[in-house]
Amino acid sequence: MKLPGQEEFEVSSACKNVPTGELDSSPGSGPRPDGPLDTKRGNLGVSKDPLLFIQLNELLGWPQALEWRETGRWVLFEEKVEVGAGRWSVPHVPTLALSSLQKLHSLLAEGLVLLDCPAQSFLELVEQVTRVESLSPELRGQLQALLLQRPQHLIQPTGTRPCQGSAHPREASYNEEALLKEQHQNPLRQKLPPGAEAAAVLAGELGFLVQPLGAFVRLRDPVVLGPLMEVPLPSRFFCLLLGPSTVGKGYHEIGRAMAVLLSDSQFQWTVRRASNLHDLLAALDAFLEEVTVLPPGLWDPTTRIAPPKCLPSQHKRLFSQLREVKGPPAPPGALAEDRHGHWLRTPSPELQRTGRLFGGLLQDVRRKASWYPSDFLDALHPQCLSAVLYIYLATVTNAIIFGGLLGEATSGAQGVLESFLGTAAAGATFCLMAGQPLTILSSTGPVLVFERLLFSFSRDYSLDYLPFRLWVGIWVATFCLALVATEASVLVRYFTRFTEEGFCALISLIFIYDAVGKMLSLTSAYPIQSPGSPAYGCFCQYPDPGGNESQWTRTEPKDRDDISSMDLGLVNASLLPPTECAQRGGHPRGPNCHTVPDIAFFSLLLFLTSFLLATALKHVKTSRFFPSVPTLPGRGWLVSPFGTNPWWLSVAAALPALLLSILIFMDQQITAVILNRAEYKLRKGAGFHLDLFCVALLMLLTSVLGLPWYVSATVISLAHMDSLRRERRTCALGEPCSFLGIREQRLTGLVVFILTGTSIFLAPVLKFIPMPVLYGIFLNMGVAAMSSTQFTKRVQLLLMPAKHQPDLLLLRHVSLSRVHLFTAIQLACLGLLWIIKSTPAAIIFPLTLLGLVGVRKALERVFSPQELLWLDELMPEKERSIPEKGLEPKYSLGGDSEHSELMYQPKTPEINISVN
Amino acid sequence: MKLPGQEEFEVSSACKNVPTGELDSSPGSGPRPDGPLDTKRGNLGVSKDPLLFIQLNELLGWPQALEWRETGRWVLFEEKVEVGAGRWSVPHVPTLALSSLQKLHSLLAEGLVLLDCPAQSFLELVEQVTRVESLSPELRGQLQALLLQRPQHLIQPTGTRPCQGSAHPREASYNEEALLKEQHQNPLRQKLPPGAEAAAVLAGELGFLVQPLGAFVRLRDPVVLGPLMEVPLPSRFFCLLLGPSTVGKGYHEIGRAMAVLLSDSQFQWTVRRASNLHDLLAALDAFLEEVTVLPPGLWDPTTRIAPPKCLPSQHKRLFSQLREVKGPPAPPGALAEDRHGHWLRTPSPELQRTGRLFGGLLQDVRRKASWYPSDFLDALHPQCLSAVLYIYLATVTNAIIFGGLLGEATSGAQGVLESFLGTAAAGATFCLMAGQPLTILSSTGPVLVFERLLFSFSRDYSLDYLPFRLWVGIWVATFCLALVATEASVLVRYFTRFTEEGFCALISLIFIYDAVGKMLSLTSAYPIQSPGSPAYGCFCQYPDPGGNESQWTRTEPKDRDDISSMDLGLVNASLLPPTECAQRGGHPRGPNCHTVPDIAFFSLLLFLTSFLLATALKHVKTSRFFPSVPTLPGRGWLVSPFGTNPWWLSVAAALPALLLSILIFMDQQITAVILNRAEYKLRKGAGFHLDLFCVALLMLLTSVLGLPWYVSATVISLAHMDSLRRERRTCALGEPCSFLGIREQRLTGLVVFILTGTSIFLAPVLKFIPMPVLYGIFLNMGVAAMSSTQFTKRVQLLLMPAKHQPDLLLLRHVSLSRVHLFTAIQLACLGLLWIIKSTPAAIIFPLTLLGLVGVRKALERVFSPQELLWLDELMPEKERSIPEKGLEPKYSLGGDSEHSELMYQPKTPEINISVN
Repeated sequence: MKLPGQEEFEVSSACKNVPTGELDSSPGSGPRPDGPLDTKRGNLGVSKDPLLFIQLNELLGWPQALEWRETGRWVLFEEKVEVGAGRWSVPHVPTLALSSLQKLHSLLAEGLVLLDCPAQSFLELVEQVTRVESLSPELRGQLQALLLQRPQHLIQPTGTRPCQGSAHPREASYNEEALLKEQHQNPLRQKLPPGAEAAAVLAGELGFLVQPLGAFVRLRDPVVLGPLMEVPLPSRFFCLLLGPSTVGKGYHEIGRAMAVLLSDSQFQWTVRRASNLHDLLAALDAFLEEVTVLPPGLWDPTTRIAPPKCLPSQHKRLFSQLREVKGPPAPPGALAEDRHGHWLRTPSPELQRTGRLFGGLLQDVRRKASWYPSDFLDALHPQCLSAVLYIYLATVTNAIIFGGLLGEATSGAQGVLESFLGTAAAGATFCLMAGQPLTILSSTGPVLVFERLLFSFSRDYSLDYLPFRLWVGIWVATFCLALVATEASVLVRYFTRFTEEGFCALISLIFIYDAVGKMLSLTSAYPIQSPGSPAYGCFCQYPDPGGNESQWTRTEPKDRDDISSMDLGLVNASLLPPTECAQRGGHPRGPNCHTVPDIAFFSLLLFLTSFLLATALKHVKTSRFFPSVPTLPGRGWLVSPFGTNPWWLSVAAALPALLLSILIFMDQQITAVILNRAEYKLRKGAGFHLDLFCVALLMLLTSVLGLPWYVSATVISLAHMDSLRRERRTCALGEPCSFLGIREQRLTGLVVFILTGTSIFLAPVLKFIPMPVLYGIFLNMGVAAMSSTQFTKRVQLLLMPAKHQPDLLLLRHVSLSRVHLFTAIQLACLGLLWIIKSTPAAIIFPLTLLGLVGVRKALERVFSPQELLWLDELMPEKERSIPEKGLEPKYSLGGDSEHSELMYQPKTPEINISVN
Repeated sequence: MKLPGQEEFEVSSACKNVPTGELDSSPGSGPRPDGPLDTKRGNLGVSKDPLLFIQLNELLGWPQALEWRETGRWVLFEEKVEVGAGRWSVPHVPTLALSSLQKLHSLLAEGLVLLDCPAQSFLELVEQVTRVESLSPELRGQLQALLLQRPQHLIQPTGTRPCQGSAHPREASYNEEALLKEQHQNPLRQKLPPGAEAAAVLAGELGFLVQPLGAFVRLRDPVVLGPLMEVPLPSRFFCLLLGPSTVGKGYHEIGRAMAVLLSDSQFQWTVRRASNLHDLLAALDAFLEEVTVLPPGLWDPTTRIAPPKCLPSQHKRLFSQLREVKGPPAPPGALAEDRHGHWLRTPSPELQRTGRLFGGLLQDVRRKASWYPSDFLDALHPQCLSAVLYIYLATVTNAIIFGGLLGEATSGAQGVLESFLGTAAAGATFCLMAGQPLTILSSTGPVLVFERLLFSFSRDYSLDYLPFRLWVGIWVATFCLALVATEASVLVRYFTRFTEEGFCALISLIFIYDAVGKMLSLTSAYPIQSPGSPAYGCFCQYPDPGGNESQWTRTEPKDRDDISSMDLGLVNASLLPPTECAQRGGHPRGPNCHTVPDIAFFSLLLFLTSFLLATALKHVKTSRFFPSVPTLPGRGWLVSPFGTNPWWLSVAAALPALLLSILIFMDQQITAVILNRAEYKLRKGAGFHLDLFCVALLMLLTSVLGLPWYVSATVISLAHMDSLRRERRTCALGEPCSFLGIREQRLTGLVVFILTGTSIFLAPVLKFIPMPVLYGIFLNMGVAAMSSTQFTKRVQLLLMPAKHQPDLLLLRHVSLSRVHLFTAIQLACLGLLWIIKSTPAAIIFPLTLLGLVGVRKALERVFSPQELLWLDELMPEKERSIPEKGLEPKYSLGGDSEHSELMYQPKTPEINISVN
């Protein structure tokens, strides 16, 4: 199953993956090129400038009915007043005409620029601004009166009022008090963070002016400008752009240009520090230097561009700007990092080998111990409550599905109830002990597949399953401990996308194959009855008064089974249904007595419906699916160590255990790497070794108790993280909310698992839902995981003529024949894995998965590092061996753009590795 | 059913709807603001300039290994060489840095500009270009040698070769001959139209130059520049942009800027006519004046923008440019039209009232007669063959579906075979006679609904259906002739979107309701058997040797029907299936003998599958669905005029006939208006009156023969038009193919219907497909037609909080409360229509549909013309009464953009009015 927004890794949506390589030294606190908002808030080492809200008031109605009217507002993106509709537009990327920027330039150059103006009120400000030579005293008076006139704001009512009486927003004139109240009640105000400042841009056509009047004021202390702004924020900037009549929408566009400039983080940064007109104009020129120009013949300027999902990095701009404007210099580190930033996967500091036995584990314990008290205190936030509810639902659904499937696979050795208990016990223990307490433990696809294989193996050789399984568990725990001791977790870096996708593809295929197979076997178990079929009917035969079946046997049929066509002779019979017949002492007779019609089609319908529903509802985790086989068996708490198995089996169990260890190691550590990605800004560090240690212990525990085996589940754990995001509460006008980190604590997980344990009381409800529903979800898991891989996209490319291929990033950088070659190799590997899986040697499939790492290594002889960088990732040694500029293409052309494109390439697996 | 691409009418995709008002005077030949390509091709009255192919060759590898390499090409959009991948990028909107345009400006200003250079070969050209003072003789020699060096082109192989050996394109040095061959085999060449010219831009960094070297050459006669270009086109322009080393990608970007400039139609137009440097620079400035600027903080310049679906109009640009550059003036009409262009629905000239009886019909006949011979000659084009096949498939599918549904509705009065015959006869007649021979006649949803109502009415009153129907047909024909005589077709302009959507919504609802209802009735006809149900079993009872059923009756059951639970006594019985039992002389006994299990679920499965398939495959027309009831009844060819009905019924039939006439008029004429839209550039004119006349005659014919009734089907007819589009064959580099018109002729339609007639031989195959499949398609039609309306979108708005609403154009211009009010009124109307449809008065529903026109008229008192313009359309009188500027918003701000936005608002119904 997938989280929303996880499935795409095309050009446009992949930008969440800020490369992990940036934060080597100090995760969570280092500088990040996340965009202008972060820049503004000081992450670049630049002092924290407040957020700026910009409002454009326009002078309309010249010459008859002059009035000021708010027509646009900005924080990052533009919202314009839809005059006819009386509402704000959706936020969009503002587009400007170059000419208006040029006109603005000359207006500012010839106009009045007051930096650090000491005005304390709007009145003072107006006096200062109108004190220009070109104005006669009476014109000045007129202008002052005009400026002080109250503007009309479009304040949208809170909530929606669908059938509001008037077609137009509240425009009537207010008294002072009402206006203040309205300003304070403006819903926009709650979206702007405390400390935000405002900028007012006043523009328009004023016929009585002889020449244009431009004024730009930076107030020394921000001042609330009364009714001027729609929100009562103190204004830092004030800009007046008036002039005689022009053709078209001249001043409207110039005003927009000023507002857009002010909304630009770099311009804002400079203009807050500018000491004279020259600085101001230089900032405008710097802006112009960086703008993107769209040719007029191909782009309709009225097209509204939706806010991009990720904003371009502003480091380069800041750097070039610092050279030009003599502002306070930024700390050198803030910029240097970006220039040589290489976007490769660099190992987490927790994955550096110490070289001592259990060295990594000790380090993990030491690191995490210091955070332990805070792991509980940090949970005291209402957000954690909703996280618990959400993750509880997800965990229970998972327990039900996997419990149901496991129970069915192992013929009742485990079932849903045990799944609840086991999940609760294992999960809670893990939450209390683990290195990364945000991890949610669960049964996962690979382990499920392995357990099914193990079970059928033990059945084939008539072994006592649970004792055998116990020994496998003991050995797995031992191997895992050995892996912890030798700090083998650092090897996780060798699992590149190639391995991960092979892993994922195989498990997905098994899921799909199994789900479809189950459904087909259901259809043959409950055959579809066609009208002409002879197997038709059932009737109830009563014994004759003597109590024997003499009447029946007297007819001497040649073949006792062929009763449908034989003459039954004189029989004491009725058409009672089988159950009633038995109750009345009769015997149901006939081929149809024990088959039930309509089951196959109904099952198929359920199967398809649950598959389609699960596909349609991506949030399938929170849905209401319930399972089938509550099978609490009548056995003791502990699994007997030998049962009926010979003693040497406990030693032989080491072999499957080795394979399972590989599987668990891969599954667990790949999840751990994803969860500890730098982009999540975790403060408390990771604990790869400690996590594996815990998994080993739990392996032992669950084997002894005969409970399911658990490892970290990628998708639920990510959902857990996601529900614990700390974000700046206030985000206005389409800007992406800024992400502050995760509430790292142990309590939510703990509570989730305690709740899961209490869910055994759901049992009476659960038995009503049939298996085909589970198979449908099963199929959905397989299909979803399969289609989330880049591998699937590349397989599609094989079948597509070149000109219909999508604009994938890798196709921009690797020639098609090489892409196809890579895909073909991957397909061949997958085919081989499938063949192995289909032979009696199926159980060794974890080993073959490991073989993928070897194949990947061999691919380095076939493909260049550049190609592998786009098709896969680089392996640790190669990464180090490539010089900084080694990844640049042959010629410098396009180098810059490729460098930035690489940033969009997802470096860590987007795939649903766990099929859960 | 819908055509691909027809379903969206959001901002982005609605631009196909070029307003009909533009081509009043001379359809097909008048000036059209369709974009630069049309402009170039002289539709603006400007002389026809050839298409320009622009190639950018860059000098790379300074200082060690200088070589020229093609890195980009343009016709309209940009394609860049993906260096790593060795392929061309997808065409995209080029984005430029403002600074490179400025650098280009100064390079050109200081460089060499040769206009009408007489060079006859590349060598001569190179000599001319290098004849600049700043170069020393030896440098000049070096430069000349460098320029003559053969560049490397990326010529992609024809077709896809997935496993090509080399990772890189053919780069080896060729001999002259091989190169020529390659140039000529370049697939690009076939995409460029004959007469196309080329422009070569050569840019790069050349360290030995002391100062930048810029040269712009316009050749007097275009010259093939040998190996310089990847295609052997004669070059008209040559531009050299070299200079000493700079930081970054300076010359790459300047070269791109030059190429983008040359790809701009207006710049191209000017520069072809420029007489000096000043003109050239003025054209550059004019380009800059019009560019759209994106702020650097919000837009990553490396983002590739896909080509927009419609290009902005270039009229305004040309107009402003003509003022500045003293080129040959364009004819005044070409520009004036655009400035005052109002985007209202203006009636077709064919829909002007003549005021004489049958005046319109006579005019139609006269107009079409002159084209009649060409209607057959014009069909001699291979394209018509594929059109025939495509439309044949669509028509047959339609005939099957509607035939199946009709046959079922009227209990075999009509069926699939009659549907074939009727469609063939009526369609062929129509094709031979009609005003618009591209129209495809078919049964449509509204007529189907009416016929079902008529049938149930006649059944309720025990009427002889076919004779009754005959009289209805006779009356309808009479009424339609009266409508033709009075030229009532001009009233079609009163059917605005409001009426059309009400019409469509009601029919869709009936379809959905019927489809679901049919399925439910199937389920109750074949009940689902649950395991415990008593209705279980069937056995075969043989009569005793005496041949009577004495054994059976001897047991004296109290209730003969309650045999399932009674003691049957001694019965001679077996479990043979009912058919075999009967064959052997027995009697099937038991409640289950005549029910078949599994049917309900199987039907449901079929129903859902066919619904989902039909939804998934938009091209359902070409799919392989077959029907069920071939029901050629054993009746004569002609329907008896009275049958068992009383004589006065023939007079009373006038009442339902009046209603059906309304329906047929609406259905036929709305389709006709859509088909005769100006954007299809039809040359032979429309024939609204003639079409209706033909429909009337066919009504008579089909009623007499007892065949289904037919009117023009919107969707199939549009598909027909679409398959007959004449387009400029050559379209390169992502440019939209230019549409020249439709092959207007009668032959394709005729052949389609002849083929349809021969399809009765399909009958043996058709009987195997069950009704639930048809119901599924039925449901799909209803859902698709319903969801294609703007009404549905507005209903969704009712349920959506304001901030989650999509950016619909109408929401930008009409306040939400007014939109909701309009929707509520429409909902109320629909509710009323539904109630009427559900009462015994159902048959009058066509009259209520007409009532919608009245409601719409009344809405003019509630809504302003501006609001109705966005929510609906204007009615004829209102249109005339609004002054040209009357539709502008209150203030001028945003006026321009709204004016252009209105262009994107679909003016003619996008809805599937016929539900077919």
